[in-house]
Formats: sequence, C-alpha cells, structure tokens
Amino acid sequence: MSALKVAIIGAKGYAARELIAILLRHPKVELVALADKLDQPEPLLDCFPEFRGRTNLNFTPADIPSLISGAETFFLALPHKAAQDYAVPLCAAGKTVIDLSADFRFEDLSVYEKTYAIKHIAAELNKQAVYGMPELNREKIKKGRIIGNPGCYPTSVILACAPLMQTDWIDRASIIADSKSGVSGAGRAATPVTHYVSCNESIRAYSIAAHRHTPEIEEKLSLLAGEPIAVQFTPHLTPMDRGILSTIYINMKKDVGEPEIRSLYEKFYRGEPFTRVLPEGQTPATKTVACTNYCDIGMKLDKRTGRLILVSAIDNLLKGASGQAVQCLNILYDFEETAGLLV
Amino acid sequence: MSALKVAIIGAKGYAARELIAILLRHPKVELVALADKLDQPEPLLDCFPEFRGRTNLNFTPADIPSLISGAETFFLALPHKAAQDYAVPLCAAGKTVIDLSADFRFEDLSVYEKTYAIKHIAAELNKQAVYGMPELNREKIKKGRIIGNPGCYPTSVILACAPLMQTDWIDRASIIADSKSGVSGAGRAATPVTHYVSCNESIRAYSIAAHRHTPEIEEKLSLLAGEPIAVQFTPHLTPMDRGILSTIYINMKKDVGEPEIRSLYEKFYRGEPFTRVLPEGQTPATKTVACTNYCDIGMKLDKRTGRLILVSAIDNLLKGASGQAVQCLNILYDFEETAGLLV
Amino acid sequence: MSALKVAIIGAKGYAARELIAILLRHPKVELVALADKLDQPEPLLDCFPEFRGRTNLNFTPADIPSLISGAETFFLALPHKAAQDYAVPLCAAGKTVIDLSADFRFEDLSVYEKTYAIKHIAAELNKQAVYGMPELNREKIKKGRIIGNPGCYPTSVILACAPLMQTDWIDRASIIADSKSGVSGAGRAATPVTHYVSCNESIRAYSIAAHRHTPEIEEKLSLLAGEPIAVQFTPHLTPMDRGILSTIYINMKKDVGEPEIRSLYEKFYRGEPFTRVLPEGQTPATKTVACTNYCDIGMKLDKRTGRLILVSAIDNLLKGASGQAVQCLNILYDFEETAGLLV
Amino acid sequence: MSALKVAIIGAKGYAARELIAILLRHPKVELVALADKLDQPEPLLDCFPEFRGRTNLNFTPADIPSLISGAETFFLALPHKAAQDYAVPLCAAGKTVIDLSADFRFEDLSVYEKTYAIKHIAAELNKQAVYGMPELNREKIKKGRIIGNPGCYPTSVILACAPLMQTDWIDRASIIADSKSGVSGAGRAATPVTHYVSCNESIRAYSIAAHRHTPEIEEKLSLLAGEPIAVQFTPHLTPMDRGILSTIYINMKKDVGEPEIRSLYEKFYRGEPFTRVLPEGQTPATKTVACTNYCDIGMKLDKRTGRLILVSAIDNLLKGASGQAVQCLNILYDFEETAGLLV
Repeated sequence: MSALKVAIIGAKGYAARELIAILLRHPKVELVALADKLDQPEPLLDCFPEFRGRTNLNFTPADIPSLISGAETFFLALPHKAAQDYAVPLCAAGKTVIDLSADFRFEDLSVYEKTYAIKHIAAELNKQAVYGMPELNREKIKKGRIIGNPGCYPTSVILACAPLMQTDWIDRASIIADSKSGVSGAGRAATPVTHYVSCNESIRAYSIAAHRHTPEIEEKLSLLAGEPIAVQFTPHLTPMDRGILSTIYINMKKDVGEPEIRSLYEKFYRGEPFTRVLPEGQTPATKTVACTNYCDIGMKLDKRTGRLILVSAIDNLLKGASGQAVQCLNILYDFEETAGLLV
Repeated sequence: MSALKVAIIGAKGYAARELIAILLRHPKVELVALADKLDQPEPLLDCFPEFRGRTNLNFTPADIPSLISGAETFFLALPHKAAQDYAVPLCAAGKTVIDLSADFRFEDLSVYEKTYAIKHIAAELNKQAVYGMPELNREKIKKGRIIGNPGCYPTSVILACAPLMQTDWIDRASIIADSKSGVSGAGRAATPVTHYVSCNESIRAYSIAAHRHTPEIEEKLSLLAGEPIAVQFTPHLTPMDRGILSTIYINMKKDVGEPEIRSLYEKFYRGEPFTRVLPEGQTPATKTVACTNYCDIGMKLDKRTGRLILVSAIDNLLKGASGQAVQCLNILYDFEETAGLLV
Repeated sequence: MSALKVAIIGAKGYAARELIAILLRHPKVELVALADKLDQPEPLLDCFPEFRGRTNLNFTPADIPSLISGAETFFLALPHKAAQDYAVPLCAAGKTVIDLSADFRFEDLSVYEKTYAIKHIAAELNKQAVYGMPELNREKIKKGRIIGNPGCYPTSVILACAPLMQTDWIDRASIIADSKSGVSGAGRAATPVTHYVSCNESIRAYSIAAHRHTPEIEEKLSLLAGEPIAVQFTPHLTPMDRGILSTIYINMKKDVGEPEIRSLYEKFYRGEPFTRVLPEGQTPATKTVACTNYCDIGMKLDKRTGRLILVSAIDNLLKGASGQAVQCLNILYDFEETAGLLV
Repeated sequence: MSALKVAIIGAKGYAARELIAILLRHPKVELVALADKLDQPEPLLDCFPEFRGRTNLNFTPADIPSLISGAETFFLALPHKAAQDYAVPLCAAGKTVIDLSADFRFEDLSVYEKTYAIKHIAAELNKQAVYGMPELNREKIKKGRIIGNPGCYPTSVILACAPLMQTDWIDRASIIADSKSGVSGAGRAATPVTHYVSCNESIRAYSIAAHRHTPEIEEKLSLLAGEPIAVQFTPHLTPMDRGILSTIYINMKKDVGEPEIRSLYEKFYRGEPFTRVLPEGQTPATKTVACTNYCDIGMKLDKRTGRLILVSAIDNLLKGASGQAVQCLNILYDFEETAGLLV
C-alpha cells in the first residue's frame, strides 16, 4: 500500500514540531508539506534545527489549491478562527481534516462563539465534526472527515472524570480541577510571560474562573452525564517544558469504596492503548508520561472528607495535542492505533 | 544595648541555613553557636560554603550545659521528637525557645501523638507554647517563652483562610487546599525523591489525604472558627528550589461580593509587615516572594460556581520556617518586627 | 527472520532505561531479560513506571547460565569491574557483548588499570574488543564480538576532534576540551551532589585535571594522530537532565581557512547517519540533540587569535551511551544502522 | 548625617531591579527616583510586584532638570549610547554618575567605537572616568565622579586573572576564558532566545570569537600586564536565572607550584570584602555566590599539561553589575564598603 500523503498547515508552533516528529517516523504516512501563512518559503531548520538530516521539507506558503492537489489528509495547527478558513475549502474538496484548534470542538456553537468572542463561519461543517478523543468517540472518529482535536487541559480533566459521569456516585456540581501545565502550553510566542526568568523557579495560577478550556470540559462532561455540569477549573504555569498534571476533587454522594471506583476505571479504559489506570497507592507524575501519548490516572478516596481525589498526567503536546491527533488519524485510516506513537 | 546571644540547635538543614543568614545580618542579635548532634566539631564551610568570610562559627556538638551558659535564646531546627528533648532542659533553665519542628504546634496533644505516631514527653511545657504566627498570635508571642513555629504548608493555607473563619459567609466544610512546594521542602537528605533527575521537569502530588500538615491546618482554622473544621489538603512536589503556592477553593454560603471579601482581608491584615493582600485581578507567584518573608494573597470570586478561589504564595524556608521564626523573635524581644527580614 | 534475542545486565540505571526504551521499539530485536545483581525478581515498574503497558519484563537476578541459554546478545550496563565479571563467561559461551562500562575501551590496559585503580582480569578478551564508535571503527565493529562502548564525554570530544587528527594543521599539544554535562551523567545514585537543590540554578567544574575520561580521549586521539596526545579536559555539572556540550579550543599551526576545515569535516562524516556538521555561523545546543542519537558539530576559526573553536553536542545517555550501543548492535548484525534510533 | 539622595535612570531592567533592592536596604542612602524613558509615570509594581509595601516610588519620565535638582548621585542602568546622553548633563551639573553600561569602561575610545559601532560623544568626560572594579582601582574610585561599572563577564574573568598579570609565570598569549552565564544576562527583552522552552534543558555557546566583552577584558588585562594581551573568550547560555562561571586556561611559563600561585592570590585579595580565594581542592559554584556580591576563585595547576585552570563564580547581576556599582558608591562616599551588600 502506498503511504498516505499528509500535510500540516500552521507548521511553526510547538504542536506542529511534535506532529513533524511523529509523522516522519510513522510507517504508513508520507509527510508532504509544512505550510504556513508565509509570503515565501522558509527553511525548516532555522526554526527546528533538530530535523537536520531527517527531511528535505521546508515551510511553504499555504496555497490551498496546491495543498489540495498534493495531500489527502491535513493537520491544522493554527490558531482558532484561522483554522476554519482552511478547513472549509479542504473539506469541500473532500479532504480529511484534523484540526488542533478549538474551532471544531464544540457541539454548541453559541458556547464557542461566546468563549472565543468570534462568529463561527462553518456551522454546517461543524455538525459533522467529531471530538477527537478516542476513549470516548472511537467509533465516530472512524467515520469522521473533520476531527476537532481536544484541548490539552480538557484531555487531562475529561479522561480523569469520564468514567464517573454515568454513575450516580458523585455530586456532579462539586468538580474542581486544579491543573498545572508546563510552559510549552503557553505557545512559542516570546512574551514577558514566557521569558525564562519569569517562568523559572516560579509557579502561579492564571485565568482563574475564566479560562477558555472550561466550557470545553463542561460540554464534554455534560454530554457524558446527560445533564449540564459546571466545573471549577484553575490552570497554573509550572516551571517545566511540558506536561499537565490535573488534581481533581469530587464529593462522593454514594458510599462506594476505592476498589470499586478503580474497578470502574479499569473497565472503562480496558484495551485503551494510551490511558493507564494506576494501581492503589500510586500517583502519576508528568515526567513519567513526558514525550509519550499516555494519560496516567491515579486516585485516592478520602473517607474522612467524603471526597475522591483524582490525579491525571499527560504530555500537553502529545496526548494533549499532536499525539492524540495522530491517534485519531490512525483510527480514521484503520492503521495500528499506536503507529508512530510508541517511543 | 548589648546584642542578644542566640544559638541554633540542628544547624545543618535548609531552614538552619536561612536562620544563619538572617541572624548574621540581624542588627540586635549575636549568633553564638551552631550546634548539632555531633561527636566533634565540623567546619561550617564544608556544608555551607556561602558563609566563607561571614563568620568564624563552626558546627559544634550540642552540649546542653555549655549551650545554656552561652546563649539566651535558642532556635531548634531539629526533627520532631528530637526538638522536645532539647526544649525541656532549655526551658527549665529559663531560656527562650523557638522550635521549628512540629513538637509545640498543637494545643491538642492527642492529635500530635496520633499524627506523628509518638508520645509527647512535655505536656506541661506544651501548655505554655504559643503557635508562632504573628498575624494571629502577636500578643501571646510577646509573652511567650516557647514558640511552636508553624509548618510551611500550614502558614500558606492558614494565612489565606484566617480572615473568613469568623464570618458566616462560607461553607466551612468545603475548604480544599491544593498546594505546590519547591524541593527544599523535602529536606536536605539525598533520596531517590530528591534526585535532580527525579524532580526536574516533573510535578506530582504526594501524601494525598494523608499529609501531617493537615491536622495542624485544621486545629488552627478550627480555633479561629470556634468549631471543628476538616480541610482537604493535597501537597505537590514542584520543580523549583523554594516557594509554596496554595490554591484554595471554598464554597460561598452568603451572597457577598469580591470587594467586600477583599476589604475584610485588608482590614484583617492592616499593618501587618509581611502579609500582603493583592489588588483585584492580581495573583501571587512564588518567585515574587522568593527569598523574602512575605505572604502574598490573591483572590477571585467565581459567581458562576459560587466559589471563592484564594491563592497564597510564600517562601517555604522563610515565611514558612526561618523568617517567621525570626519575626517571632523580634516580637518577643520588642525589636523592630522586620529586623533582619527586609532584603 | 526471527528477532534477535537480547538481554540487558545492569538494568536499573539511566543508561539501561534508555536501552529498554530503544530495544522495545527496535524492529529486529526481542528484549528477553533485564538482569541485575539481585536476590530475587523486582518489578520493573517500581523503578521505571513509564514502561507500564509496554512490556511484561521485570528485573531478574543475573544468573549467567540461564542468561546464556536465553539470549544471543548482551548489553552490560554495569559499573566498571563488574562488567568484566560478566563479559568473560558470556564471551566464552560465544555470546556477543556490548559493554557500556570502561572495561573494554582501552587498548593499553596499563592505562585502564592506572585510571580505574584495579587489575583487569580479561586481558586476552580485551585484545578482541572493539571501541564502539561507528564513525571511526565501523568495519571492526561489524566483525566484533565484544564492543567497548565509548564514554559520554569521550564521544563528544573525539567526534569533534577526529577529522583534524590526521592533518598537520593544528598544534596537537594545544587541545583543551571544556565540557558541560546534564545531571543524568552523574548516575542514579542519590547523593548530596545529585540532590535537586544542589544542582538546580548552579553550574560548577569538577574533577579538574583528574577525570577518568581524559585517558580514554587521549588514547583514541593518539591512535588517530599516530603520536601521543595530551588533552586538557574539564567537565562541568550543568542544571539540566541530559546532554553534553563540549567547547574545544585548538591552536592552528597552518594557515587554513574555516571553509577548508568545514569541508574536511563534511567529507569525514559524509554518509554518517548520526554525526551532523553544522553550516557556517551555526552552533549546536544540547536541546537540539536531546533524546536523539545525533552528535552536532559546529566550528568557528578565530583568525585574530589563531585558534579553532569546535563545539559538539550529544545526548549523554544516547550517542553518549545507549544510542551508540544500539548503533553498534545494528552494525554488528547488519540491521539498518538507524533501526530503533530515529524518533 | 542625612541620607545621600540617589536616583536610578533606566529603571526597568534586571540590573535596575537589583539596584532598587540594594538601595532600599542601604543604611546611608535614600532612593528618590526611578526614572526611565517614559512619556508618563508607570507603576513600579506592574513591573516588579516584589516591592509591594517596600516603597512608594514609581517609574517617572527621565526629566534631567528635575532629576538634577532632586538627587546627588545617579546610577545609569541604560543601554550603551543612551547612557552617554544622560551622563554628560549630569556630570556638567556636578553630579556623581555610576554608569552600568559600556560607555565609560574604555580608556581607548577607538576600541569602544569599533566594538559598539557608534561614535562616543563625551571623550573629555571619558578621560575622567574610572573603571569601577574596587579590587584594581579602589583609590581612583574614591576620587571618581564618573564610574564605568564593569561588564559581567569581564568581572569574572579579570578578577580570576589579575594577580598573575604582573608576574612572568604565564604565557600571556595563552589565556582562554570559557564562561557560562544564567539567562538574566540576556536581559529582560522577550525574544525567541530568552523563551523558557528555548533556554530550559539546554546549554549552548554564542558569539564565539565575537563577543563585545572581549575588548573590555583585553584592555584591562593589558593595562595590568603592561603589554597588549589577546584573550580567547567564549560565552555560553546556561539554564539558570543568574550567575557566571568562568573556566580559564593558561599555559605556565615558569615552574611555579600551586601553593605559590594560591599564595599570590591570597595576598592580592587580602582584605578584599568580596573576593574570596578558595582553599586547595575546592572549586566555586554559581549557587554559592547567587544573590551575593562575592566573587569566588578556585584554581588547579595541572603539572601534566603545564596549564593552570582557574575557575571564578559571580552573580552576574550583583558583582557583575549592581552589587559592584553599589560597592563603588560606598567607596566614593566613604561608607562602609559592604553597606547594603551583605545579605
């Protein structure tokens, strides 16, 4: 079988870098273009010198007709809003699109529009979009033609909470997610916030009660629960390159033991290649999953307070972005689900 | 006035290092001994080369009679249990003791004994002990002869919550404290946990629902509230040298606005030299308070969820240990409260 | 073709961890044992939780007869001295051994014995050993049965200097190598030196004029030059997990231009899959090669001073240890030389 | 005695931040203005929240007449070129100026003009300038009215080499300085180079054979030696906030022992409050001097190669900038030389 021709649009960010790395080692894929909003080509190695000797590709201007003629499948690693502009013509031409922005993550576009403060231009296309979280939507992803790849924080929180959402064990109004992200989550732009001396040796909360990933988390958990759920979400900037640790607090409503809860999780994630439920007494660390597509989930039931504490760890650039995107690609094309993703 | 003669017992840990630095620059104090459980003297500079040229003191065996004859006031920077053994004879000899261990922090010794799994040998002395948090106990500290210096996590959580404890604004059963500490909090012992490659580029939770600082937090908040309060406390190991950030979630019971809450805090901490309430929209960072004795407190009322999110930042070795201990010393001896502590 | 059965002896260190990761993804190899000096088996995941779901192997006691019966090829990731003890019986049984310790790196065993202050017990076997640096010894490696895998610092210094050694362009007595290593180079033992708070936010030199890798560098450069060469080598401990940067100063003897020197390097390393000569004006960074098997080499000729400054970067655990070891394996067994090594 | 009124011009960089901290705790000084090139005042706390509660000063537009009327002494923490523009009118008005830029560091202005590629506009004033390194120029500093405060790298290299410059023990053409700096040395500007993810977990050389501090080092060492000296200087960007470690290689010409060399250094720096010569076998680390005004110097004579290896460590923002500037202030005004500088 000839390799699937794949292009990346929006190729200069951290998520794109990970996509390039994965796709270069992927056994079923040929990476054919690294397009971006450019006037003229730019050397890949000026931006990512680590790929010296690995590829002859360079960044090229994102010309839609030539992209359409050259590739079958497209990863969009663009900011929200820009992604729509590319997704529409690509889908119209029958191409498959995996969008890493927020543009196709929401079922309820009014929430999207309020959260991102822009008008969505592709409501019809959005109806066909599948939220690209294999653990929840594998069957839909198989038939998808446009995938809204989940946000990094939502991936860590949703995977940690999902199994409980269809039980009556918990107080669904009580979910609090305290998340800690590495600095790559803030993107590649050089700002006072991402300056080494600002980040190093410091941790701080930001966007308290106001982060854009909150509505995404809430929509997905609400769909699972069958009723609207509000989540208290607080992100923190942590002095490390990559990784998200989410510590989640939930009040128990039923007298269920930790073994029963763990058993629920093990069943829920049985057979999942990338979501690992840790044994009793073990808690995840971001380093354990760094540079992998895994999500590790640990738990502790505090009988004294009646709360369940869940902790999940992912690599924000992999399971939280590019790794999950390629996992979706693998499902879509019936490749081995782990292809390119086990290092 | 001649300088107050001060000694440190348990002089080789991180908290002791900070004590040495503060006391060497303190205008009213003469540091006369650095004692530890040793068979023979050891060079200070082998352990702390940064003090070259600053002092001729070295580590000496902790011989109680000679310590008693040489100093007036003692800082104990020993593990719990060991601290009692020294505090008893020192207090019997009429000396003033500021103990940085957990040994004299608890009013209810049964809680101490359960938490630390040992018998307390100095119950009578403990009755005279004052919990050394100036914001809560300044008047008692003035008359104290033995100070139980607060733990690092408790300082960050108690200062963030104290003003609310005497109001009826909050659901007192709902307090959740998610704390992130730098690695110096784990002590100077070389273990697999404190190895650079274990800590660096990783964040993880530990001692979930089981950390020894939980009962300390609970006793002090309960005393403030006038009723027993349970707190959900989760510490995290964060890749940085120093600092604690505590993110605290509390359900509101009354319809109080954020300005009103901030105003309560500003009144509560008015005149405090080291506790700073941040203006609206600002949140603390550990780096802002690193190497200082400050505690910064920020807040955000989330009307949507009905929760108040408090964030406090301290340096775990200063306001969380040695800085607060010297603040107590300054109060005890009627020195300028900031003496030695403003750098 | 059935997979090559491979075992690791000395499986709990950082180099072993990398070997496990590479061998698990290697298309031609089956990893069959993780042996160590143990009395009874120990769970792999207690030590390396990142391998959860990747393998069912655990650490097992290193029983030579059963190892011999179960595997064809052995990686020894043991301390020097211990490696010899295993290499002798394994080679006697006709097995292939790739030794990551210093035990089989030296042609002149008197240098080894002086440097490591022990007697070598396998002088005959050592005569058959090949220094496992593919760029210098590819043909010999093909026929090798025992490989002395190069040290981390030597790899970074030798690859940077090798092309010049057979020219008369330089003053061979003038080579100074100032190397900076990440903390994983200090090994997995928890010591005061490797404590996070000791390493973080600090850089320092160590073993000045006395590091054990100096004789290794000198022997290999001397062999290339055909005369004895002394090298000034200074290692530094740098606050990062992995990577070595070597900055090398050499006095020029002939009036040769930088383009000519670069051209020499490009010819010398033409076709090499893992050694990359950077273009004019570019210098390597450890991050560019982190988690890869590459060695990047940059250079600058300072006409003003008559010195050539070479800079090389490797990942100390990969090209400086386990990656190079697998590269040797691939050469030995005529596998694709990059098999398992391109991520 | 009333306090000396001091102003800072160029108040928003890292060096200015350190100046503010030192001057706020300085017993003889009143900090009266934080001026910068601004159209209107800006809150200090927006830039440096750590000073909350410490001062009521804010950033103000740098209006020369009002600055002249309000302060006696000025620290210029401006870029080169801009510093001259302020120094000229301030000195004309009889004020004392301590300039942290390169503008008044050079005796030979043609070197300055070539190095910084601009014309110097104050040649006459420059003749009166004193290079502000107390260890070399204490007597001149006492009578100075304009101080050219040394660069960070030059401080670390010059202090390490100075004692040898007037001996005939060394080959003066052989000096190689390999320096490693923390990221604050790159300034507060947010650029791709200072992005956390660029710096973290990476070390790299930059400006090889081309750094602007080379001519400064060379002029000062040449003045000491009485003949022109060329120095090979290579700076490196190191993943830490602050600190410079310089490893310096010098060929010995005379058969002098390490004790004799150490003795020379001890005599040269006897009585110096901030330059510490380490005992045999000890080497400096940047962390030992972080947040202090010390320069630590260690050495090792390698008899085998005939080279002396010197290692010096400073805090680039203190002894390498603001600490040394205040040390000069103290000398100029006959304050205790350590005033404000011992923490």
